Amino acid sequence: MDDVTGKHERMDGAHADVVGGRTSQPDIQGEPLLLTPGPLTTSRTTREAMLKDWGSRDDAFTAMTARVRGYLLGLVGGEGTHEVVLLQGSGTFAVEAMVRTLVPTDGKLLVLVNGAYGERIVQIARAIGRAHLALAEAEDTPVGPLAVAATLAADQTITHVAVVHCETTSGILNPLAEVAAAVASAGRRLLIDGMSGFGALPCDARHIPFDGLAASANKCLEGVPGVAFVICRRAALESAAGNAGSTVLDLHDQHAAMEATGQWRFTPPTHVMAALDRALVEHAAEGGLAGRAARYRGNCRVLVEGMRALGFTTLLPDALQAPIIVTFHTPGDPRFDFRVFYEKLRERGYVIYPGKLTRIASFRVGCIGRLGEDDVRGALSAVRGVLDDMGVRVPVGAAR
Amino acid sequence: MDDVTGKHERMDGAHADVVGGRTSQPDIQGEPLLLTPGPLTTSRTTREAMLKDWGSRDDAFTAMTARVRGYLLGLVGGEGTHEVVLLQGSGTFAVEAMVRTLVPTDGKLLVLVNGAYGERIVQIARAIGRAHLALAEAEDTPVGPLAVAATLAADQTITHVAVVHCETTSGILNPLAEVAAAVASAGRRLLIDGMSGFGALPCDARHIPFDGLAASANKCLEGVPGVAFVICRRAALESAAGNAGSTVLDLHDQHAAMEATGQWRFTPPTHVMAALDRALVEHAAEGGLAGRAARYRGNCRVLVEGMRALGFTTLLPDALQAPIIVTFHTPGDPRFDFRVFYEKLRERGYVIYPGKLTRIASFRVGCIGRLGEDDVRGALSAVRGVLDDMGVRVPVGAAR
Repeated sequence: MDDVTGKHERMDGAHADVVGGRTSQPDIQGEPLLLTPGPLTTSRTTREAMLKDWGSRDDAFTAMTARVRGYLLGLVGGEGTHEVVLLQGSGTFAVEAMVRTLVPTDGKLLVLVNGAYGERIVQIARAIGRAHLALAEAEDTPVGPLAVAATLAADQTITHVAVVHCETTSGILNPLAEVAAAVASAGRRLLIDGMSGFGALPCDARHIPFDGLAASANKCLEGVPGVAFVICRRAALESAAGNAGSTVLDLHDQHAAMEATGQWRFTPPTHVMAALDRALVEHAAEGGLAGRAARYRGNCRVLVEGMRALGFTTLLPDALQAPIIVTFHTPGDPRFDFRVFYEKLRERGYVIYPGKLTRIASFRVGCIGRLGEDDVRGALSAVRGVLDDMGVRVPVGAAR
Repeated sequence: MDDVTGKHERMDGAHADVVGGRTSQPDIQGEPLLLTPGPLTTSRTTREAMLKDWGSRDDAFTAMTARVRGYLLGLVGGEGTHEVVLLQGSGTFAVEAMVRTLVPTDGKLLVLVNGAYGERIVQIARAIGRAHLALAEAEDTPVGPLAVAATLAADQTITHVAVVHCETTSGILNPLAEVAAAVASAGRRLLIDGMSGFGALPCDARHIPFDGLAASANKCLEGVPGVAFVICRRAALESAAGNAGSTVLDLHDQHAAMEATGQWRFTPPTHVMAALDRALVEHAAEGGLAGRAARYRGNCRVLVEGMRALGFTTLLPDALQAPIIVTFHTPGDPRFDFRVFYEKLRERGYVIYPGKLTRIASFRVGCIGRLGEDDVRGALSAVRGVLDDMGVRVPVGAAR
């Protein structure tokens, strides 16, 4: 998808040095590098785009909104078939809005669950009163297209299926294309939580039939948090009037108002949008989705190889690992205390993430954000130093 | 309320020059002054607070969240009785979350309507399926405490009353204390849309009984848009489990998670929060609510006097005018075209706002944001110049 340009110009040479790596050390006092699933480390230029105030009904901001929508649509090849509906709030706001708006009140949602974000869709369906059922797998196992097909064959009342593309709980990559094919061949509609991989993991609407794809600005797009979006199949969106049972989370009405005026229904996060607009320029300059994915794959490879060399083990085999976030088993050495490990890494300028698995002690390290392989090597060096500080032998012991 | 300090330190002398006025001219090319009801002009230092990335689960961000909540609670004197629940999104997200969470599913809401924001609460109640009725006044008439008392006496099934403090449609100040007294003496519960005045118009929980008060960062607090909040009476919030019928808009669950961990349930708008944190430091430095109100009153007085000198007339008599936003009648001169007026003012560096009245041609000019009387005088001079450009005689003709 290198040919995706939207209306964003390619970044000029003066900014090329920010792509693919950082030469600066982390600012240990004030600004650690965020090796997390987001909010994550953004480019200085993206943050500087927030130094200006925008009138939300002014033509300049309306043009920015249109530009961002166009670029996001291009990322999924959705021109002519899909619409980008921007929404204030975090990614979960977009997921709830997607389920409310696109699953009719007499519909029934099958949720594929192999982690906390699939579970959250179940929680949303329960809270908003949509009929639903869950098809669960273990957290280290991809959701299975065969099981999806069997479930859809057995329950003809299911109208929609929800799947998480990359389940951030473990970092596992679910087989989106195969699930989508199973859903389409059963004549049902697909909703995708594409949050953590959008902008780096491909999801092309010309090959993967979906009614809704929810994602946010502050994952692989490297914007700042505060705005999310749902890419909706136009026909599904147009027939969704009155479904939502909400004013602010109604994507149909949000879209209708924006189409009518070019403006947001309710106050947009203007500065956050300006940061996203800039972040998309940098996304295009890096070679779009393919370029960004290549950098993240490099980060992930250096991270996994380096951590394995220190004795850590990954939850997932490499074939199931998305280049987004990696789950490592907590080492068996009793001198390893995650809270101490976290704090000492932070003192050295690197913020990592606690585990989220339900039954296995673990921690997570992100590969995304404005980081390159040199930054990952810096983090590995810090891990080595912290282990020494803690008196944990290297290589660390086997996982518990 | 000069004694409100929260945990924010007073700004040091080096920043005192930004309070109470601007010496710089508007940056006509890139950064006009926003004479709007928000998003509005913020201080440079507030925007610069967004130049740093924050880990959303890191202790530094958790401390910032607690500091902001504490300051906001202090602004209403709610310590010990109320809780501040922060919410991602625009102000309307907070209003919907307030109605969902605090009005039980078997409750009934009386909405006082004299403009678009009252009407929006009616729309929310309808969308989410809460029983409700509206008590409507004309857009230039305050909602009446006597009518509220009579309505509550006539319908014992009403459990809650919603009122808009300053109705931005017209700029009218509704009699909050009198309405609150009528609601309390009838034994019902009050919800306040305090959006456009919060931080400048007093609303003290020790004197004005309310269960919920919704507002946002980017009005009189002079933060940037992207985060809102509801200040809830603690007992009302604690008994509200399961009311919301939503995952993301459930203030009970949002609060419970934050109390348990100090962290946000879902990704917070970290940069927007950092801007709010800084904006509150500057609010305190200006003398808190009283200092900010004094500056806005000065802006409003200079604006109204100056526009009247040019021949414009205000919708409201001065006694009903809140110092937030002023509605002017569109002049009768046929050479006056609002779109041209707007564009030419924007070229001179000032963004104003279209009218929102249902039956009267009007436009609006805001008094809030990081503006002082000199900025308003600059805007008046620009208005005079634009009228000359348009060939509109000064003083302008009577309103249509």
